[in-house]
Amino acid sequence: MSILGIVVEYNPFHNGHLFHLKKAKELINPDLTIAVMSGNFVQRGEPAIMDNYSRAEIALKAGIDIVVQLPVVYSVQDAGGFALGSVWTLSLLGVTDIVFGSETGNMKLLDVLSDILIEEPTVYVKLLKQHLKTGLSFPNARKAALKDYLKLHLSDFAESIQEIERSNNILGLEYLRAIKQIRSDITPHSIVRTGADYNDPYFKGRFSSATAIRKLIITGQWEKVKQAVPDYSYAIIKRECALKKCPVHLEKMGRFILGLLRRLDREDFKNYYGFTEGLDARFVRCSRQCGEISEFLECVKAKRFTFTRLKRLLMNVILKLSPKLIEQSNKQGPQYIRVLGFNENGRSHLSRIKKKLKVPLLTTPSTWKRVMYKAISGDFEIDQDLFQLQMKRDIMAADIYSLFFDDVKVIKASNEMKRRIIYIRG
Amino acid sequence: MSILGIVVEYNPFHNGHLFHLKKAKELINPDLTIAVMSGNFVQRGEPAIMDNYSRAEIALKAGIDIVVQLPVVYSVQDAGGFALGSVWTLSLLGVTDIVFGSETGNMKLLDVLSDILIEEPTVYVKLLKQHLKTGLSFPNARKAALKDYLKLHLSDFAESIQEIERSNNILGLEYLRAIKQIRSDITPHSIVRTGADYNDPYFKGRFSSATAIRKLIITGQWEKVKQAVPDYSYAIIKRECALKKCPVHLEKMGRFILGLLRRLDREDFKNYYGFTEGLDARFVRCSRQCGEISEFLECVKAKRFTFTRLKRLLMNVILKLSPKLIEQSNKQGPQYIRVLGFNENGRSHLSRIKKKLKVPLLTTPSTWKRVMYKAISGDFEIDQDLFQLQMKRDIMAADIYSLFFDDVKVIKASNEMKRRIIYIRG
Repeated sequence: MSILGIVVEYNPFHNGHLFHLKKAKELINPDLTIAVMSGNFVQRGEPAIMDNYSRAEIALKAGIDIVVQLPVVYSVQDAGGFALGSVWTLSLLGVTDIVFGSETGNMKLLDVLSDILIEEPTVYVKLLKQHLKTGLSFPNARKAALKDYLKLHLSDFAESIQEIERSNNILGLEYLRAIKQIRSDITPHSIVRTGADYNDPYFKGRFSSATAIRKLIITGQWEKVKQAVPDYSYAIIKRECALKKCPVHLEKMGRFILGLLRRLDREDFKNYYGFTEGLDARFVRCSRQCGEISEFLECVKAKRFTFTRLKRLLMNVILKLSPKLIEQSNKQGPQYIRVLGFNENGRSHLSRIKKKLKVPLLTTPSTWKRVMYKAISGDFEIDQDLFQLQMKRDIMAADIYSLFFDDVKVIKASNEMKRRIIYIRG
Repeated sequence: MSILGIVVEYNPFHNGHLFHLKKAKELINPDLTIAVMSGNFVQRGEPAIMDNYSRAEIALKAGIDIVVQLPVVYSVQDAGGFALGSVWTLSLLGVTDIVFGSETGNMKLLDVLSDILIEEPTVYVKLLKQHLKTGLSFPNARKAALKDYLKLHLSDFAESIQEIERSNNILGLEYLRAIKQIRSDITPHSIVRTGADYNDPYFKGRFSSATAIRKLIITGQWEKVKQAVPDYSYAIIKRECALKKCPVHLEKMGRFILGLLRRLDREDFKNYYGFTEGLDARFVRCSRQCGEISEFLECVKAKRFTFTRLKRLLMNVILKLSPKLIEQSNKQGPQYIRVLGFNENGRSHLSRIKKKLKVPLLTTPSTWKRVMYKAISGDFEIDQDLFQLQMKRDIMAADIYSLFFDDVKVIKASNEMKRRIIYIRG
């Protein structure tokens, strides 16, 4: 049986995503397609434009059979942690093939590069340190070190050197590394991306980036949104916004986030993952000086920190993600599979494999404690403390997220614990 | 030398306050008048309508010689802690007489009652427990127990029993208790209050309550505000609101406060003062169900909890006030005197007594560390850890407060550490 797995955020689902999904299915011709999707907070260190369940619903309409939620302890990590949690989740679900988009179709190159990242040859580490010392951010220093290393030791790939630059290649690289790291037998495939770069902020018609589409939603340019996303996606985005559950974005959380930071002393930041290199002192100073998030980020910014990294640090504070929790999660993997939705095909697959899984399936969030206790007394290979922590963070993420809906009545009515799985019948 | 001390919040300063001030001066005919004033957060468990310095400025215009800030560890406590911190501060400053408003002029009654509160005779304690068991809130159970006790043991006061009911009598009682508790030789005096009850929510013309005036400010009914406050108070309120630094109120902090609470598990509440009687569980549940503060308070409310107590608990969370910090503060007193403003008379008094004080004077917040280290190596009787904690909470209070100004640029420009003392010449 061939099971296709894809890693998505669908923030929101657009024509480029549909194109990728179709291509992936053509390539694998799978019996089943599973998407692991970020929940309410995404990898760029921001809240998603609309919530987990509404985005899962669109994914099902687009032809995904099962949508599971990537625990937030992974979804707001850097490319490495994000890829690790995603691949691990798909692997637990018995996925046979992963297809990811990248700017290159050159799998051989990605394979070689991921080996370098895993094995970390002395020469590579030395090159990396040199580039970091010049003040480059970690992702940029790594790209530079990989390029140098290829030039020196793997001249066969000399022609491909420029390809390393492109951002999705780095994510692709991390998928390969994760597959090797957890010793999964998933086969990775890459599809060359088309259309807008995913960070391109401008409307580009039918194939606009998610970044551009979010801007259109926030500014209410619905005619353009309509051009850039499939009809079912448009209908659900419109519905959610009409319900005042959309758009949610980082700037709306400004006072909340700055208020949290203003309550913290420098030493308090050791409770949150990733505050190295004097970032604690910068966060203390800038949070007291600034009145909104964009201003705060500009204040903290330096050449060696990317904006995305800084925003992820904000998420670590909001969601109380400690170094220990992140490190344990990266070592032990996801402790449950949270299913957001499925169709008939997906449902019957899950009931078939349910008994064979290494971690429990969670389809109704309110039952999490029961599921956990049952899992501990059963044959599952889970760590109770880590299960609880990952789960509580997922619930907290939803509880914080819904506070930023525009209508107080909608906030009141939103309760993650009362959510039901989305089941799309034939 | 006779020094009059008064305990105020001036939230905002109105005609009733001016009346009380004049009467107090007539009664004492003091050489100097000192007010200890709540800072940015007040005893009813809310942010003040406008900030500490602007309210101090009005107080100086009204004829107070020195305005000092009650540390926030006291200003958001119940009547007992509030009175203790206030009286202690005034006592440290060499105040000879305190005048407070109450609904009774019966000092003998208040004196007897405060003795009961301090000595806690067995019979009284038993009565108190009985009333608490019926589900009454602590203030109400205490009033009932005091009434019963008077009936049983002090029949001379039988006629005065009804007077205990009135709210300002309870505060007066606490001033007397505090004076005895810290063995101060300050002489207490009471003035019978006139005009509106301070909780009266309705506009009553010239003598309206602070509660009513805050509502008028929030709803922009400036003509009525003008009737209820002296001209200089009106001018400063208008100025602050024009600068977008006013009005600040609890409901504006809704998402921030609910967001904080939604990040807390039940066990986390042990870090905050006052969460007894299952209040932790109520706060967890209601914070997840409610979208705004008023709704949250209704959700948590029970007969035995007053709204004011619940709001103070919110302040304990926002400002990270731990049981240990509150208990230590109530045991060891204020560790510094923070001066917000003075006139010439006040300034020369302070420079005269500066050397004789038991705790250091702080006139420029940014110098607090220097002042602290100097104080430790000098003759002051302070506890360095407690000094730091009290001071950091005061700064945090100002940093949180300013986040809720309406204009982001004003937030940016607000920095408690850059504030200068208000000096009114001539």
